Amino acid sequence: MSGDCIFCKIAKGEFGTKFIYEDKDLLAFHDINPQAPVHVLIISRNHISRINQLDDSNPDLAGKMILTANKVARNEKISKAGYRLVFNCGPDGGQEVEHIHLHLLGGRQMSWPPG
Amino acid sequence: MSGDCIFCKIAKGEFGTKFIYEDKDLLAFHDINPQAPVHVLIISRNHISRINQLDDSNPDLAGKMILTANKVARNEKISKAGYRLVFNCGPDGGQEVEHIHLHLLGGRQMSWPPG
Repeated sequence: MSGDCIFCKIAKGEFGTKFIYEDKDLLAFHDINPQAPVHVLIISRNHISRINQLDDSNPDLAGKMILTANKVARNEKISKAGYRLVFNCGPDGGQEVEHIHLHLLGGRQMSWPPG
Repeated sequence: MSGDCIFCKIAKGEFGTKFIYEDKDLLAFHDINPQAPVHVLIISRNHISRINQLDDSNPDLAGKMILTANKVARNEKISKAGYRLVFNCGPDGGQEVEHIHLHLLGGRQMSWPPG
């Protein structure tokens, strides 16, 4: 837990966020500024600032986030039509909240380049 | 190996692609249509069509791709400035080659939405 982190507060339930998936490591909920008909964030319960902090000492979290996004996509009925998964890391990546999160976007044709 | 898959042919060395990272599971090389000053693809050696085919029976590959992208980003000197990681899955995701690959993009400010 990091005191000022909005995603830590969401994870603690401080905003009454509706979680569409949760387990001991991860939570998923709809982005409040959706960029596609389906736009879900998958976040870690623990406070880790950036994806580039994950390395061989913490090998499982990133993969679990991807597999969880796949599960959420199936639940949201977009797995067959397709979707985009996005990790933003740091300023150039456009990361707005310094707490690891994965964007799942679908329900429309995603364009290229990806931002 | 899938006979007509361009990424399987790249993995076999048929095009003389310069790999900037390789291990027993993964390969990385520069995208031939770069969308950013740094645009690297991380692919699996084995032919798997889409990221949504990965599930709890194959828990490690997706995470390894992310951690490898982190390593490549460090090697490319963009880890501190930041970057974006993108998996496209299926038609709506904009997946162009039906062989799992992760896009690493950096060296410029990425914009939002991500496509």
